[in-house]
Amino acid sequence: MAISNAQLPAARPALSQWFKSGNSITQQFMAIGGRADIISLAGGLPAAELYPVDAIAAASERALKRWGAVALEYGSVEGLPALRQAIAERVMASTGRRFGPENVLLTTGAMQGLDLIGKALIDPGDLIVNQFPTYLGALDAWRPRHPRYERLDWCLQRPGFDLALRQAKFVYTVPNYSNPTGVLVSQAERAALLDKVLEAGTWLVEDDPYLPLQLDGEAGPSILAAHAARYPDGAYDGPVIYLGTLSKSLVPGLRVGWIVAEAGMIATLALAKQSTDISSSMFTQAVALELLESGFEATHIPRIVAAYRERRDALCAAASRHLGEWFEWDIPPGGMFVWMRAKSSEIDTNELYNCALEEKVAFVPSSVFDPDGALNSAMRVNFTRSSPEVLAEGVRRLERAVQRYLGRRSGRGA
Amino acid sequence: MAISNAQLPAARPALSQWFKSGNSITQQFMAIGGRADIISLAGGLPAAELYPVDAIAAASERALKRWGAVALEYGSVEGLPALRQAIAERVMASTGRRFGPENVLLTTGAMQGLDLIGKALIDPGDLIVNQFPTYLGALDAWRPRHPRYERLDWCLQRPGFDLALRQAKFVYTVPNYSNPTGVLVSQAERAALLDKVLEAGTWLVEDDPYLPLQLDGEAGPSILAAHAARYPDGAYDGPVIYLGTLSKSLVPGLRVGWIVAEAGMIATLALAKQSTDISSSMFTQAVALELLESGFEATHIPRIVAAYRERRDALCAAASRHLGEWFEWDIPPGGMFVWMRAKSSEIDTNELYNCALEEKVAFVPSSVFDPDGALNSAMRVNFTRSSPEVLAEGVRRLERAVQRYLGRRSGRGA
Repeated sequence: MAISNAQLPAARPALSQWFKSGNSITQQFMAIGGRADIISLAGGLPAAELYPVDAIAAASERALKRWGAVALEYGSVEGLPALRQAIAERVMASTGRRFGPENVLLTTGAMQGLDLIGKALIDPGDLIVNQFPTYLGALDAWRPRHPRYERLDWCLQRPGFDLALRQAKFVYTVPNYSNPTGVLVSQAERAALLDKVLEAGTWLVEDDPYLPLQLDGEAGPSILAAHAARYPDGAYDGPVIYLGTLSKSLVPGLRVGWIVAEAGMIATLALAKQSTDISSSMFTQAVALELLESGFEATHIPRIVAAYRERRDALCAAASRHLGEWFEWDIPPGGMFVWMRAKSSEIDTNELYNCALEEKVAFVPSSVFDPDGALNSAMRVNFTRSSPEVLAEGVRRLERAVQRYLGRRSGRGA
Repeated sequence: MAISNAQLPAARPALSQWFKSGNSITQQFMAIGGRADIISLAGGLPAAELYPVDAIAAASERALKRWGAVALEYGSVEGLPALRQAIAERVMASTGRRFGPENVLLTTGAMQGLDLIGKALIDPGDLIVNQFPTYLGALDAWRPRHPRYERLDWCLQRPGFDLALRQAKFVYTVPNYSNPTGVLVSQAERAALLDKVLEAGTWLVEDDPYLPLQLDGEAGPSILAAHAARYPDGAYDGPVIYLGTLSKSLVPGLRVGWIVAEAGMIATLALAKQSTDISSSMFTQAVALELLESGFEATHIPRIVAAYRERRDALCAAASRHLGEWFEWDIPPGGMFVWMRAKSSEIDTNELYNCALEEKVAFVPSSVFDPDGALNSAMRVNFTRSSPEVLAEGVRRLERAVQRYLGRRSGRGA
C-alpha cells in the first residue's frame, strides 16, 4: 500500500506490519474514483440513478413511527430482532431447514461479515482456502490477521487439496456470479466442494452479494440450501457461514448486511462485532425491515435486472468490436462484472492500467484478486454503474489504451 | 469469555487465540440486559425517553430531499464530505487551529475508532499506555491485536513511565468524565501528559464521548486544543488522535462517530476502515449533518444535562443513605457514572455482583476495567438510563445485596 511511515511526522511509532503488504494498485484505482474526466469501469457500484429514494424516504418515516426510540438505541449487538427474524424466515423459505433469529447476525454490509470472520477464526499463519481469483475486499479484510492462502480453483481432485482443507480454518467462495470472474459455479461443483468440506470438518464461507442480479436464468440453490437439503432436520448446525446484503438489490448506503450460520458461530461472531463497533445502526435496520416487509424488492429487482442486462449486453457488444483482437471473455449470467482475459502473454494488465488512465478510463487489473499479486493477464470490467453509451465510450478508450500500450511495448522492445 | 469451541460442533477448527482471554463477567452482564425484572445500573446507555424521535424523523426527510441518491451510496471511505467539513469547523472553533475534512474520518460510533486505531498501530506484544482503570470497550477492541499494557495513573513522574511512553505505540485516555471513574482530568495533568507524549514522540488517543454531558461547570479545553494552543500555526500535525461521537448528545442508534487527527494518520485509518466495512452509512451521516446544522443540540443538550444532573443527584443521595457504610465515591462533575470504591478490603465486587443479581440489580464490577482483571474493590454505577425513582430502588437493592454478601461471607468465615 502507498501509505507508509514516510507520510507521518518523524519519530512517531511504526504502523502495524500488515501495512507493508498489499497492492499499491488498490489505492491507485480508488484515488481516481472522484475524477469526473475518467470513465471508471473499476468499482463494484450499482446504478445510482436506480436507487429508490422515495421508497426509502417513506420507509424511514414508517420505521420511526413504528419503532420510535427503539430504532435510535444501540440495540443488541446482533441487530434488530424483527429484522433477524425476517431474514431467518427468508432463509427458511429458500432452504427448507429451520433457522431462527439466533442464526442471524446483522452487519455493516457483507464486508463487515468478512472482517468478523477473520477476527473470529484467523491467527497469523492460519490457512484460508479461497476461490481463485478472489474478491479483493476479502483479501483486504483478512490482511490484518496475516493468513496464508491455498487456491480453490475447482480442481478439487488435485493432490494436496484434501490436506489443505483439513488444515484450513475455512473455505471462502462466491458461487453466484463470482467477483471478479462473473462465473456461476455449477451445482455439481458446489456439491463436490460441500462433500469435501464436510469430510474435512472445516467451515465454508459462502459470500452471496450478487444473488439478486440473476440476468440470464436462475442461480439455483445456495450451498447453504444444498447442505440443508441433505440434512433437513432440526436447527441448523452445518458448516456454512452465509453472507447476504441489501447493497446490490436496494442500496449500499443503508449498510445492511447479514451473516447466517449455526447459533454457536453467530454468538462467536457477535462477540467479535461487540468489540468492533458495539452494533450497527438500528435505524437503518428498521428502514430495511420496512422495505423487506413491503415486498418492494419484488417490483424493484426486475427493474434493475433489466437495466443491468442491457448494460452487460452493451458492454460485451462494444468489446466484441473493439477489444476482441486482444481479449476473450464469457458473457456473465449475472452479477456486475465481465472478466476479460488477455489472449496473448504480451499483455500485462498492470501496465495496461497505466495506459488506460492516460486514455481516461479505468478497470481493475487481475493482480489485486490474487493473494500473491502475480496474476497479470486479465481485467475486471464493471457494467452496472454506467449507461450503455458511457460503457461504449469506455470500451473505445480501452481500445486506444491497448494500442498505446502495445505501441510503447514494441518501442521498448526495439 | 464464555464462548468456546465446546459450543461449536465437534471437529471444527479452533477459534482465534484472543477468545481465550477476557473476562467472563463482560458477557454475564450483557446477558442480563434484556431481563425486565432486573434494574440495570450496568450499561453506559442514555435515557431513551429523551431521544429526539421527531427531530430525527424531520432530519431524515430533509436529508433525503437534499442529497437524494448521494445519501444512499457507499460514498467515500472517509465519510460524507459535508459532514467531515462540519466537524472540522467545529474542531477549529474549539481549538483555534486549522483543521479540514482531511483531518476527519467518520466512523460507526467512536467504538469503531478504537478498533481502527488498534488495526493501524498494534502488532502482538506492542505496548499501549492506558488510563487506569480504563474503558472496557477499548480493552475489547484491542484484544484481537494482543497488545501489552502499561498503566497511566497520572503519577507521571514515577520511574519507568518515560521509558514506557517511548516504547508505546500510543497513550489512551478519556480525560472528560472518564469511564469508569467519572473523573475530570485536570488541565495541569493534561498539560503534563502532553509534555511527555511530545518528548517521547508517541501518539495520544483522546477519547471524548462524554464532552456534551457537563453537569457541573465546564470541562475545559481538550488535549487536542491544548496542543493547538502551543502550536497554533499551519495544518494540524500533532500527536493527538481525537475521538468524538453523537451517541451521548443525540442518539447512539445513528452510529455516527468521528476521528480527528493529522492527515497522514487519517489516511492510514481510512485504509483500515476500507478493509473493515468499506464505509459507514451515508444516510445516517446525512441525517446527522441536518441535526448539526440546524443547531438542534443547543436546545437539546441542556435538556438532557438537566435530567442527568437530577439523576446523578438522586443516585448519590440514595447511596449516601444506603451504601455509605461500605462504599465511598466522588460526585462526578459530568458523564454517566459514579465510581463506588469499597472502604474495606473484605468486599470483592466480583462476588458482590452475584449477590446483586440475586437481588435483581446489576452494576459493572471494577475487574473488567483492569487489563489484568485484578481490580476487585470498586463498582461502576450508571445514572443516566434510569429515572430517579428507579435509581433509588436500585440502590436499596444494592444495600440488600451487600448485606447478603457480607452475611454469606461471615458464614463462610465461621
